[in-house]
Amino acid sequence: MMPEPKPVSASASQYTAWAQPNDANALGTLFGGRLMQWVDLAAALAAARHARCTVVTASVDSMTFLRPIRIGQLVILRSSVNRVFRTSMEVGVKVYVEDLHSGDRAHVSSAYLTFVAVSPEGQRVQLPPVLPETEAEKRRFAAAGHRREYRLQLRTRELEHEKQTNS
Amino acid sequence: MMPEPKPVSASASQYTAWAQPNDANALGTLFGGRLMQWVDLAAALAAARHARCTVVTASVDSMTFLRPIRIGQLVILRSSVNRVFRTSMEVGVKVYVEDLHSGDRAHVSSAYLTFVAVSPEGQRVQLPPVLPETEAEKRRFAAAGHRREYRLQLRTRELEHEKQTNS
Amino acid sequence: MMPEPKPVSASASQYTAWAQPNDANALGTLFGGRLMQWVDLAAALAAARHARCTVVTASVDSMTFLRPIRIGQLVILRSSVNRVFRTSMEVGVKVYVEDLHSGDRAHVSSAYLTFVAVSPEGQRVQLPPVLPETEAEKRRFAAAGHRREYRLQLRTRELEHEKQTNS
Amino acid sequence: MMPEPKPVSASASQYTAWAQPNDANALGTLFGGRLMQWVDLAAALAAARHARCTVVTASVDSMTFLRPIRIGQLVILRSSVNRVFRTSMEVGVKVYVEDLHSGDRAHVSSAYLTFVAVSPEGQRVQLPPVLPETEAEKRRFAAAGHRREYRLQLRTRELEHEKQTNS
Amino acid sequence: MMPEPKPVSASASQYTAWAQPNDANALGTLFGGRLMQWVDLAAALAAARHARCTVVTASVDSMTFLRPIRIGQLVILRSSVNRVFRTSMEVGVKVYVEDLHSGDRAHVSSAYLTFVAVSPEGQRVQLPPVLPETEAEKRRFAAAGHRREYRLQLRTRELEHEKQTNS
Amino acid sequence: MMPEPKPVSASASQYTAWAQPNDANALGTLFGGRLMQWVDLAAALAAARHARCTVVTASVDSMTFLRPIRIGQLVILRSSVNRVFRTSMEVGVKVYVEDLHSGDRAHVSSAYLTFVAVSPEGQRVQLPPVLPETEAEKRRFAAAGHRREYRLQLRTRELEHEKQTNS
Repeated sequence: MMPEPKPVSASASQYTAWAQPNDANALGTLFGGRLMQWVDLAAALAAARHARCTVVTASVDSMTFLRPIRIGQLVILRSSVNRVFRTSMEVGVKVYVEDLHSGDRAHVSSAYLTFVAVSPEGQRVQLPPVLPETEAEKRRFAAAGHRREYRLQLRTRELEHEKQTNS
Repeated sequence: MMPEPKPVSASASQYTAWAQPNDANALGTLFGGRLMQWVDLAAALAAARHARCTVVTASVDSMTFLRPIRIGQLVILRSSVNRVFRTSMEVGVKVYVEDLHSGDRAHVSSAYLTFVAVSPEGQRVQLPPVLPETEAEKRRFAAAGHRREYRLQLRTRELEHEKQTNS
Repeated sequence: MMPEPKPVSASASQYTAWAQPNDANALGTLFGGRLMQWVDLAAALAAARHARCTVVTASVDSMTFLRPIRIGQLVILRSSVNRVFRTSMEVGVKVYVEDLHSGDRAHVSSAYLTFVAVSPEGQRVQLPPVLPETEAEKRRFAAAGHRREYRLQLRTRELEHEKQTNS
Repeated sequence: MMPEPKPVSASASQYTAWAQPNDANALGTLFGGRLMQWVDLAAALAAARHARCTVVTASVDSMTFLRPIRIGQLVILRSSVNRVFRTSMEVGVKVYVEDLHSGDRAHVSSAYLTFVAVSPEGQRVQLPPVLPETEAEKRRFAAAGHRREYRLQLRTRELEHEKQTNS
Repeated sequence: MMPEPKPVSASASQYTAWAQPNDANALGTLFGGRLMQWVDLAAALAAARHARCTVVTASVDSMTFLRPIRIGQLVILRSSVNRVFRTSMEVGVKVYVEDLHSGDRAHVSSAYLTFVAVSPEGQRVQLPPVLPETEAEKRRFAAAGHRREYRLQLRTRELEHEKQTNS
Repeated sequence: MMPEPKPVSASASQYTAWAQPNDANALGTLFGGRLMQWVDLAAALAAARHARCTVVTASVDSMTFLRPIRIGQLVILRSSVNRVFRTSMEVGVKVYVEDLHSGDRAHVSSAYLTFVAVSPEGQRVQLPPVLPETEAEKRRFAAAGHRREYRLQLRTRELEHEKQTNS
């Protein structure tokens, strides 16, 4: 039996972090790897709120770094479940920095990750579908389907390529 | 003038880390976000050795988690530059765990990231091309091209979709 | 000239953190000291949004720990400026834990801290007054006054007591 | 049956820490939240030595930051149990910085915290009374009583105020 | 029965780390204590690969710091088991820094540590002997013997000295 | 001109730390590398108090681990300068654990490290001699001389051995 669908708003989450001196790269801006860690936490938060059980990162499907984050800036990560594929779900994360002196916010990164939900015995669990309600949610729902389709096409092509070059 | 090409072996790198108790998720295995951080460091290492200047993560194009990493296991990350696209380069990272008691190694994750090289003034710098030599290097060189082609197709489709749904 | 007053909502902030294995005390619950650190960050966030300049913790006036936080729980800290006293401001922080499996939230701690704002030269800066709008905001505004009054009384009594016992 | 009283000297403790680059705020001085964490550790040490069982922070009753701590300075925290109230105890912490080049020490913070002692089953445990011996210890014993009295008065007033504004 | 001997190459290990801002001392170079931590990890890795069971640091016999490590430099630690003394083994660690911009490597530290292997019950375990094969391995094998001989002589002299000064 | 001699008591220092969950090795006891880091800090503290200028670790001459430290135990490190050799000094560190429930202390490690003092320009600085006063201080002063003598002998032998095996 399929679990009850849930609206996107049930998983919408916000995670906040401060870029600290130890997180700086040679240019004095935030290390990519530190932001990845926060993105994973923010995404896991949305996934857990949708699934209400233990969730595990299955893949990072894309993460783009639009501009550097300076040490001392406040980093705000908004996440929600875009779409469910039976036992996996795509989570979208949008990252902003807020300059605390001016109050200005800027969009610095976007990411898509896939999570699976697991039972206490470690088995994959069927997930409740997600119900997109707003226009933006519906667009993200459709886009999550395209991204998945492309990933599957790319994987097929890679497998064929491997077969050819190995034979 | 284009910089001298370099072989893949010039950037081939190895980074090692131990999964420690504080890196554990609720299942007692390694947090996805921690592995992402190490993958970024390992990839930055290969990128810096190819570019021999400051490098910055531009995107994570894909990272898959094949199996959980247990706390206490040794994590070995092998990275190298797969292909250069003028001012950006794709770096591949393959992650293994070694069980120190048995000596067994298992492949636990694969990742592809894009880095750009920047001058001390923060300008993007033209990169030396990479010369694939072995069969495996040539296959990864070709695959990096396919992955880029698919990313561009996906971005075009997303932009069109946004236009349609906004109009 | 006095800066323009601002509503409480201009400083209302939310900070989130996960209780991780390394934050555990001997009972397997969150160290008091770790929560204090998060409370300071959450309070600094509200203070900075009110002052829009650099803020510094002047004192912790009270922080109560109502129930232990378990490792793995999500910790949500809500903060806002309760009242301004010319160059200092009282910030209130209310801490909740959310059980991610059930979605239940519980109130685990309340804190009041005083911050001052400083200029880039390190001088104390006059702050914009805060405008309480809702009933709850007005109650907290009044209570901030009582807390300050009691602190001043207590300090006077302590100084007298020191004089007597030293003479 | 009441446990045997113990002198203040039985709990007198010293905890030391170095202010490191990662602990810096935007002004390049120590984050308030980091000092709070150390104060909690130093206080827990005195509380545990008095109680000789597991102790838990119940509240921070006051902590004042008299002057900023520079990165690289040695931080010395002296703590002892000021007074016992059956199952809770007030611990006082005095914080100094030592400039290692000159040997100068300065008083930078004072704090009062309340701890409770708990049995392995998590029950609150009756504590041995503390015996103040020196003049300074007797003054702190009396002051701990005043602080508690004021806290109770303040709480009563807050409860009344809440009743009035809610009715 | 003695376990099968193993070549030095079976334990040869490489560990890598980046010197980060938080690891800096007052001179802006890497803290000695941080390098010690990495040296212990690198040595433990070689010891575990030789013993293929749990290993514990018994002593640091010498560690010299030849030149400072700058923050941002890549630190490469090479380790291998030099010699086995029934239930203990000497591990040698040689530390290099690589300047990622120039590719230059410099030798910055050498260390010798002794590890013991323990069974799951915590008992010391007899180790497989190590077989030095190359000239360099044979020289290190001999030198490990000299170092041990000197340590024993020094300990004897210290014990005699203690007896004389106590009597 | 030689700086004024100082008594050992001028450098006698105490450093305290708690063994936390993240510091645990596979046996659930404290990592050797973490203790090394604390030993270096404790030794640097004594060295800085003797030299009253910037000090840098030159070598770890020996560090023995007598028994494992359990997570949650309080670690107390006592350090002082044993002897000065013009521009370098030997610092001794003795490490104890205190069981906070019973109050029992046990000696768990001893270490000897050599530090040098450097001017703000990075030049080595002549150090004030140390004056041993008690019997124990005099014994440690003499033993520091023996340790140094043995290290020089060992180094000479190693250099000769290298010459022979290389020729």
